Amino acid sequence: MSEAVNTLEGWFALHDFRSIDWAAWKSASEEERRAALEELIAFMHKWGDVEANKQGSSTMVSVVGHKADIAFMHLRPTLEELDALEAEFNKTQFAMYTIQTYSYVSVVELSSYVSQAENPEADPAIQARLKPILPKTKHICFYPMNKKREGNDNWYMLSMEERRAMMRSHGMIGRSYAGRVTQIITGSVGLDDWEWGVTLFADDPIVFKKLVYEMRFDEASARFGEFGTFIVGNRMTEERVNEYFAI
Amino acid sequence: MSEAVNTLEGWFALHDFRSIDWAAWKSASEEERRAALEELIAFMHKWGDVEANKQGSSTMVSVVGHKADIAFMHLRPTLEELDALEAEFNKTQFAMYTIQTYSYVSVVELSSYVSQAENPEADPAIQARLKPILPKTKHICFYPMNKKREGNDNWYMLSMEERRAMMRSHGMIGRSYAGRVTQIITGSVGLDDWEWGVTLFADDPIVFKKLVYEMRFDEASARFGEFGTFIVGNRMTEERVNEYFAI
Amino acid sequence: MSEAVNTLEGWFALHDFRSIDWAAWKSASEEERRAALEELIAFMHKWGDVEANKQGSSTMVSVVGHKADIAFMHLRPTLEELDALEAEFNKTQFAMYTIQTYSYVSVVELSSYVSQAENPEADPAIQARLKPILPKTKHICFYPMNKKREGNDNWYMLSMEERRAMMRSHGMIGRSYAGRVTQIITGSVGLDDWEWGVTLFADDPIVFKKLVYEMRFDEASARFGEFGTFIVGNRMTEERVNEYFAI
Amino acid sequence: MSEAVNTLEGWFALHDFRSIDWAAWKSASEEERRAALEELIAFMHKWGDVEANKQGSSTMVSVVGHKADIAFMHLRPTLEELDALEAEFNKTQFAMYTIQTYSYVSVVELSSYVSQAENPEADPAIQARLKPILPKTKHICFYPMNKKREGNDNWYMLSMEERRAMMRSHGMIGRSYAGRVTQIITGSVGLDDWEWGVTLFADDPIVFKKLVYEMRFDEASARFGEFGTFIVGNRMTEERVNEYFAI
Amino acid sequence: MSEAVNTLEGWFALHDFRSIDWAAWKSASEEERRAALEELIAFMHKWGDVEANKQGSSTMVSVVGHKADIAFMHLRPTLEELDALEAEFNKTQFAMYTIQTYSYVSVVELSSYVSQAENPEADPAIQARLKPILPKTKHICFYPMNKKREGNDNWYMLSMEERRAMMRSHGMIGRSYAGRVTQIITGSVGLDDWEWGVTLFADDPIVFKKLVYEMRFDEASARFGEFGTFIVGNRMTEERVNEYFAI
Repeated sequence: MSEAVNTLEGWFALHDFRSIDWAAWKSASEEERRAALEELIAFMHKWGDVEANKQGSSTMVSVVGHKADIAFMHLRPTLEELDALEAEFNKTQFAMYTIQTYSYVSVVELSSYVSQAENPEADPAIQARLKPILPKTKHICFYPMNKKREGNDNWYMLSMEERRAMMRSHGMIGRSYAGRVTQIITGSVGLDDWEWGVTLFADDPIVFKKLVYEMRFDEASARFGEFGTFIVGNRMTEERVNEYFAI
Repeated sequence: MSEAVNTLEGWFALHDFRSIDWAAWKSASEEERRAALEELIAFMHKWGDVEANKQGSSTMVSVVGHKADIAFMHLRPTLEELDALEAEFNKTQFAMYTIQTYSYVSVVELSSYVSQAENPEADPAIQARLKPILPKTKHICFYPMNKKREGNDNWYMLSMEERRAMMRSHGMIGRSYAGRVTQIITGSVGLDDWEWGVTLFADDPIVFKKLVYEMRFDEASARFGEFGTFIVGNRMTEERVNEYFAI
Repeated sequence: MSEAVNTLEGWFALHDFRSIDWAAWKSASEEERRAALEELIAFMHKWGDVEANKQGSSTMVSVVGHKADIAFMHLRPTLEELDALEAEFNKTQFAMYTIQTYSYVSVVELSSYVSQAENPEADPAIQARLKPILPKTKHICFYPMNKKREGNDNWYMLSMEERRAMMRSHGMIGRSYAGRVTQIITGSVGLDDWEWGVTLFADDPIVFKKLVYEMRFDEASARFGEFGTFIVGNRMTEERVNEYFAI
Repeated sequence: MSEAVNTLEGWFALHDFRSIDWAAWKSASEEERRAALEELIAFMHKWGDVEANKQGSSTMVSVVGHKADIAFMHLRPTLEELDALEAEFNKTQFAMYTIQTYSYVSVVELSSYVSQAENPEADPAIQARLKPILPKTKHICFYPMNKKREGNDNWYMLSMEERRAMMRSHGMIGRSYAGRVTQIITGSVGLDDWEWGVTLFADDPIVFKKLVYEMRFDEASARFGEFGTFIVGNRMTEERVNEYFAI
Repeated sequence: MSEAVNTLEGWFALHDFRSIDWAAWKSASEEERRAALEELIAFMHKWGDVEANKQGSSTMVSVVGHKADIAFMHLRPTLEELDALEAEFNKTQFAMYTIQTYSYVSVVELSSYVSQAENPEADPAIQARLKPILPKTKHICFYPMNKKREGNDNWYMLSMEERRAMMRSHGMIGRSYAGRVTQIITGSVGLDDWEWGVTLFADDPIVFKKLVYEMRFDEASARFGEFGTFIVGNRMTEERVNEYFAI
């Protein structure tokens, strides 16, 4: 048996992907559409207040392609709050025009492969990383991933030292992108179908490609990375919401 | 041919996952909604009576994300009772607002890797584990799993001694979580698509993550564990039902 | 090239799994429901006559969980008869309340790994096994399977002797369950997506689990078995049909 | 780099699988149904004329099970003709009662593993095989397949000699079924998701099983065959169409 | 850790696959259909203007089989433009008759395995390849692909020299098809589910088959290529649009 690395957990995360039922949206009356958008925007304001009060963070994006039209990422202190938030949203008139196509449940995670905090509860830098305000970048990239357990490529049979060396190399690639991309790792072992979710934030979407591609040549990804779907979104402001849904 | 371990079987289990058709729910009249919720709550009371009479156990949860909105876990002495229960529920007006998205059929199982009961039928501790009352914790985690049969990682080609040693180590991790999590193993070989279902009960959902992650470094999981979907739910009381479905 | 084993083929088989559209069923008038059930029961009687005339055999079950609500297994001398039977059923009013979720097309098969019949056409025991009357047990278990062809675990690259030895051991496990379970093997190479269908009949569903689990430790399954979905059903009589569909 | 075998290409092929919407069919008026069937039968006549003019070949079958109710196989000189044919059919009233569940796009292919034609354009036997009239057998079997590229079982890393030897052995099995089954190989590398489609024609469907099973023990299949779905159909004549759709 | 190859990125790409809801199309009034087609054709003109202004490129095809009826490929300088384009299209009346069945998000990519541009921003040949006008060939073939990371067949663990040698050989096959096929490689690491999209343009669809098949014997594909769905389309002109949709 190999030694498990210690992890710290912060806010819970819900990634919520939705397609728009454009036929229903278009055939709704202008009044119905206005009322629905007002509801959505009221939610956006409410989420802004939660963020201002440091009780969570939320963002909304539009998504190119068939996987979704819009998506939300919500961070909250508890799973119950995410549950209530989703149920409340599902009961809006706006939600009637959407179909939930995918979602991901996880929790912000810091793993201590590289350095070990002595008293994480009292360390403000660590607390800020565990309860992050989602960056207001133009683009967001989300993908879930596993560490492989196949034949000789079994991450979980490696020694702590081997894993630590690979994660250090991996982290160095990440650090070389500092200032261009922000990464939030959420753990989902025991919570959803993959072991982690990775959410990247950048103003230039080419940075997502450059970073993930460079990492793929790193042994931690090359031999041990297993990747799910990749979804890139463009951040929605209130102004963009009105534009996007205007008929 | 390797020796198969002995197993004891108890109550049959049905995990029943449902999405809510929120558009239909919202467009129903308040009276229709009230009648539907009364039906659901009447079922919850009935299930409570079954539990009080030690003829089974049931629980209901809400689920975050797209896999389901609500889920039920039912334990009953026979497959026929689960069949009747599901058919009866499917014929309620409440069920018309739900879509069954997933389910799992299994039976509570104890395997004798570690200790062997002499006369299990007469052993009250074993009988209690085979016919368990589902814990009233705040959160529930369900996932199905297999033991791998790939190349050199073939659980079913190992000797009884090798399997016993790994299961003992595995059990010790589980025991270190005693008091924080309750685990019910249900066997589904010959009954559903995976070999086992694992249902965990805890008041803190981070415990699901910590336990499953720690076990993943254990050889029994690292080399031989194959996992299906993971679904986490928040327990529903009558009060939460009314809140959750209130428009 | 390895030597293929000889096989004998009997009646063709159709496993037909259906979900009930409960909302449509419930919103139908009592008269419509009565007429639909009369059609279904008339089919059951007709199938009974076919069986009495030794021109085939049919059974109907209810299924717990989301994979299906009801299922039929039909044996008939030709594929054309199964085709006609399915089309006729699809045109009933009852079928309008069902959605076909899965099916399996195969043919009863005896393989000569263990013993070789000299003149199978004239051997009444073999003919009875090729054209079996489906047992009237309380429960039925169906699953499709392949023999693996992966790296060193390639069934079809083994010699006839190796395969024969494994099948003999496999058969001995099966025989130790004699009286508790009946097994019908149907071949589907060239007919459907897996190589075989296995249908088990027993009065105690735990026997399905015990048998399949014990076989899994046998090399023929441990190294070479690849399994599809497992579906367990509870036999439907005319009486149970009326009960099951009563609103 | 291994040497690629030469291939000759003939007519393009579209396999088109459709489920019937029986509820819509049944609830249509008799007049609507008659008109729709007349359209279908007019298409069948038209396809017959194309075949008589050696400008292609078409056949229609009924399919047992949930994968489809009916299927068409069309051969035409160009992809554009298949496109036009499909669009024309999709716009009929009959097509409104169907749902396209699967399809396959490929082109009749002869590979020169065994013998090499000197001047294939002028060789009438080769031309007849590249532009075949589909046999009028009672049954048709279709499946797509790949040659495996996994670890040591990588077809595309073998030398031409190794591949030729295996294909010769494979072809000898096929030849031993001469007179009982006709095989049309269509290539789909670069056209659809698998590398080849195999369509078999026989009056006895057991021959499909015998042939495919015997070939599975041949190294070309045992080590290198990767198979998709298998679908068997029963040929539809105008008479059978009227019977099949009669309410 | 292996060295990552440098890449240059150009225009973003959206491949957008749609099925037609023929029943809705057919039951629409002639006036509604005319208005919808006018919208579509107006979009085609607009896309033509974008292309004339060198601000992007677009093409439309019809697709044989069940995967889609029509498809669009759009190149634009930014992801935001693709997003706006898709949203605008989704809000047309024409789009109400379509269902998005698949899509692919990527960016035109040149990798420097073979030669390295000194100052790519100023090199007109490179700029033309990064911002290409889509060829007006009769046929288009699209497929996504990965480089494999399995056991000994792990592309990302190879040295730069090994990869370069294989890519050079690969490129030589491609070059032997010069004049018959044009290839546009789009990178999608971090943007969509596969690592690359390949779009081929040719007047003879057999060339797609010949090229992809020949490459499959090349080590870069034979050992390391992993392929997704293959979809072939026939280019749509305004004239063909009117024909295709005429009832």
